[in-house]
Amino acid sequence: MRISEGVEWGIHCVTVLALVPPPTALPAARLAEYHGVPPAYLAKHLQALSRAGIVESVAGPRGGYRLSRPAAEITMLEVVVAIDGSAPASRCTEIRQRGPAAVGPEGYPLPCGIARAMWAAEDAWRTELAKRTIQDLVMGVAIDASPKAVEKAVVWFGEVLR
Amino acid sequence: MRISEGVEWGIHCVTVLALVPPPTALPAARLAEYHGVPPAYLAKHLQALSRAGIVESVAGPRGGYRLSRPAAEITMLEVVVAIDGSAPASRCTEIRQRGPAAVGPEGYPLPCGIARAMWAAEDAWRTELAKRTIQDLVMGVAIDASPKAVEKAVVWFGEVLR
Repeated sequence: MRISEGVEWGIHCVTVLALVPPPTALPAARLAEYHGVPPAYLAKHLQALSRAGIVESVAGPRGGYRLSRPAAEITMLEVVVAIDGSAPASRCTEIRQRGPAAVGPEGYPLPCGIARAMWAAEDAWRTELAKRTIQDLVMGVAIDASPKAVEKAVVWFGEVLR
Repeated sequence: MRISEGVEWGIHCVTVLALVPPPTALPAARLAEYHGVPPAYLAKHLQALSRAGIVESVAGPRGGYRLSRPAAEITMLEVVVAIDGSAPASRCTEIRQRGPAAVGPEGYPLPCGIARAMWAAEDAWRTELAKRTIQDLVMGVAIDASPKAVEKAVVWFGEVLR
């Protein structure tokens, strides 16, 4: 099972945007710089987050991205789906319908039980991600890092947003 | 999130092997034929299942693969891990430690909270897969398919195992 790097970047960006006092917006280039990731690649993910109604872009000299709604109303699942799509991780290629012993599609009225079991596990994964909001992650940011790391980030953002 | 095709093939193969009366073994070529998948590629997955102690190979003219233990004692999670590995789906590349505001590694004594939240969701996925055994899947096979499909498979296996 693999989750794309864009998901990690997207959740970090949305968490950082949650720390920016409204109605301030943060330029995409600054988000890329802060995270040390390629701006062009990150821009693609920010656009996906915008299409999903999680962030919104603000035009003008003090423009950039900001959250479309409070961080407590954005779940991790929404961010993951915005960037990675909602297709199941486990694709059922109906191999039970291949080979010398297979009959026509009418012989398989129900979805394959193996696929159903895989999908049930994915539902458990989604349920867990839907339980956590970006606000929950924001609360953890300052606890996980040292005071020195938090201070340096606060100073950096203070200069960017001045 | 993506799960490799090999996982689908592996679970189907282990489920089919659970239907073969012990101590009979099924040749790898027959397993590939039955599922309509490339023998060389499937062989790689069968070897992974063998290394994981889920199936065992039997040498000789009536050789092939058979389950190493009862289907009720093999979980779906074991099969998934045997084929796909146990690495987390979500890789944390520590992007909080990149960029102009980052401090040295000593500034981040705890794992990133975003990664921890992603891993907690994966744990929910694993827990769900660990709850289901191959025996549970076997019970569903005959219910999901039509009587005609089940009969054709039984006849095919009867000829192969004769």
